[in-house]
Amino acid sequence: MNNSFILRGGIAFSEDKNRITTYYRGYIVCVDGICMGAFPSLPDEYKDLPLYDYGERLIIPGMTDLHVHAPQYTFRGIGMDEELLEWLSTYTFPEEAKYADMEYARRAYKYFTEDLRRCFSTRAVVFGTLHTDATLELMDQLDKTGLITYVGKVNMDRNGGENLQEESAEASLEATKEWLERCKGRYVNTYPILTPRFIPSCSDELMMSIGVLSRENGLRIQSHLSENLSEIAWVKELVPESTSYANAYEIFDTMGTPDCPTIMAHCVHSDEEEMSILKKHGAYIAHCADSNMNLTSGIAPIRKFMDAGINIGLGTDVAAGSSMNMVKTMLITLQASKMYYRLVDQNVKPLTFEEVFYLATEGGGSYFGKIGSFKPGFDFDAVVVDDSKMYSMRDMSIRERVERMCYNDADAIIKDKFVKGRKVYTRIE
Amino acid sequence: MNNSFILRGGIAFSEDKNRITTYYRGYIVCVDGICMGAFPSLPDEYKDLPLYDYGERLIIPGMTDLHVHAPQYTFRGIGMDEELLEWLSTYTFPEEAKYADMEYARRAYKYFTEDLRRCFSTRAVVFGTLHTDATLELMDQLDKTGLITYVGKVNMDRNGGENLQEESAEASLEATKEWLERCKGRYVNTYPILTPRFIPSCSDELMMSIGVLSRENGLRIQSHLSENLSEIAWVKELVPESTSYANAYEIFDTMGTPDCPTIMAHCVHSDEEEMSILKKHGAYIAHCADSNMNLTSGIAPIRKFMDAGINIGLGTDVAAGSSMNMVKTMLITLQASKMYYRLVDQNVKPLTFEEVFYLATEGGGSYFGKIGSFKPGFDFDAVVVDDSKMYSMRDMSIRERVERMCYNDADAIIKDKFVKGRKVYTRIE
Repeated sequence: MNNSFILRGGIAFSEDKNRITTYYRGYIVCVDGICMGAFPSLPDEYKDLPLYDYGERLIIPGMTDLHVHAPQYTFRGIGMDEELLEWLSTYTFPEEAKYADMEYARRAYKYFTEDLRRCFSTRAVVFGTLHTDATLELMDQLDKTGLITYVGKVNMDRNGGENLQEESAEASLEATKEWLERCKGRYVNTYPILTPRFIPSCSDELMMSIGVLSRENGLRIQSHLSENLSEIAWVKELVPESTSYANAYEIFDTMGTPDCPTIMAHCVHSDEEEMSILKKHGAYIAHCADSNMNLTSGIAPIRKFMDAGINIGLGTDVAAGSSMNMVKTMLITLQASKMYYRLVDQNVKPLTFEEVFYLATEGGGSYFGKIGSFKPGFDFDAVVVDDSKMYSMRDMSIRERVERMCYNDADAIIKDKFVKGRKVYTRIE
Repeated sequence: MNNSFILRGGIAFSEDKNRITTYYRGYIVCVDGICMGAFPSLPDEYKDLPLYDYGERLIIPGMTDLHVHAPQYTFRGIGMDEELLEWLSTYTFPEEAKYADMEYARRAYKYFTEDLRRCFSTRAVVFGTLHTDATLELMDQLDKTGLITYVGKVNMDRNGGENLQEESAEASLEATKEWLERCKGRYVNTYPILTPRFIPSCSDELMMSIGVLSRENGLRIQSHLSENLSEIAWVKELVPESTSYANAYEIFDTMGTPDCPTIMAHCVHSDEEEMSILKKHGAYIAHCADSNMNLTSGIAPIRKFMDAGINIGLGTDVAAGSSMNMVKTMLITLQASKMYYRLVDQNVKPLTFEEVFYLATEGGGSYFGKIGSFKPGFDFDAVVVDDSKMYSMRDMSIRERVERMCYNDADAIIKDKFVKGRKVYTRIE
């Protein structure tokens, strides 16, 4: 299959955040990896392109996982009775320390990479560990998949315990520069992203130097913000001059700019001040509802963030989230927003299915460019889904089938996946 | 495989609600359909029984789905942006009306029955529709599976619209008596249960007559209680003399007795008065967290109910719950209890994984007798699970693997299922 072709099937994509456009037995056209649009009947100008007919299957845009920890993948789904700080010290940090061993890293990252290749995501923004070699191994593996990813070597020079901590701010910075040097010219699909874990893991000096590195090289940053109440109290102790956790990042000049946006995962407890900081810097919120419920963090008021015009995508946040399945994440995102409305503030209406579908596709995809829709000019990222295991007693609309898929992820089988018009995955029956 | 044998594998079951007993490569012994216990090594007295070695697979007790609507199964996962009363009138009642057509009922119930056979549940308490013939068809199909179920022909003589309503209280009662008559001697594994849908669907006269029928014949009752705020307000209008929704059921003598316990689904908004009524009557709460989040109903304070000593099991509540997968229900139950703690009342601690495993197995199972554990004297209900798709980088304990299975239900493959020592399902590879 070359890079210009037509797919036919049950098409669904977000026209905007309130509208899912669908075509039963419709067409999407890919020319040189770019989507020319979706059509109920095929325009004459494309009639000579090869056509691949997926019959009754669904075809939806590739999804973007805006926050996932690769080294945590193999211990997902355990220790979920803990809250954040206990969970990090008991499960996460000891596991991540093992990635000093390259043989371990190679094997473990194969599991992660292969499962990412098979899931609904065509793009992802990924945390590695603090280890340069292991992070390059992860990037090498990801680059070959054809998925497009940002990957970060983690910075942490304090509070990691003796096995998961860089020796000093300077050592962390030097390791980061070496890592960036070794990335140069090495990848087609994989980009480095600066990754200070979170303020409790990074000294003021380290945070400052990451801010400088970002600014001088136009490098993006990812981190965590306002996930857990104990964490927030700790940050206030660590950066007493800050007016908020977000302001602490701002002090270190790590909140980015609209042209070089920072991703902040969680923002569960972000108030008006943090919202205005996020908005001002053009930052992205990676909303991780599954993780936020599992670690008893709370529920982020996504409706408020959307109303304020803040950039938002969804993250699975494995391993605090238990699966890389973005449609399961959509279901949990919906449930979380309904509970925020019911239990916290009835002025904050639940997210609609349309809105959550948008967040999973174009919302997070916009971090990468024109990604996550079948509107003309978007990169051709597409996922073909067989939902026939969920038989029905009547004809269902494409819109109904897409909703049903999210509520029954175990029965939605991905058949093929395309990134920029290249097939990156085919299910072997 | 006859009815006395030994299974070997990774055994896990609730010793009590705070303790999961596990044996790596342990044994469970079945004699005439009854569990003789679980053992780290095989007692001599059983050494002549046939042994089936499941190697590294997990073996857990069969689960009990305490609340599921069979006719709603084929439209699960759609319309989930609605709340209860709108969802009932828009999706549910029109669908249930179709079960007047026996051809339709036969086909649709095959989907339900086959999927129930394949899931983690070995026991279930099931709503049919108001149609006698269709409900008998459902019971016929279920009886053949070997699963043990209670099934109810629904009573509703008001507020169902013209297509889903019995003509009068008397007509509903007569149809129920006819249905009970036709059940007699017909089933081995399937029991009738009286099923007034909920008070808005049943006139005072009908409710009263169901109470009498229950008492005179020792027949159990299932219904819905305090699911949604609009519903509760409506019940208060319909039964103005009641002091609570639960009291309204009490007025009609439908709350049952410890020897003949009523199941009340939901109890999201049940207060101290309702708790004391439920407790006094020995009623069971069917906790349906997935449904309660999907329909924006809220979160039931299960910890409070447990502390009060009320009987509790879990229900999937398809189709307001979107799947019959009880381990996915466990995950959502945990998330719901964590959010109740975080967002509503920090004096109500989240449920532990141990507690939720107990509720899914022995908690709900106790409605059927000694069911849902591998302690001696329990019915031999068991599920064999292959979790090898969730490879790990280290040896995991059985306890960890059981937790991981619940957080990654899509990757937990059921291989075999036993009810009372009879194999009712084998996965065909």
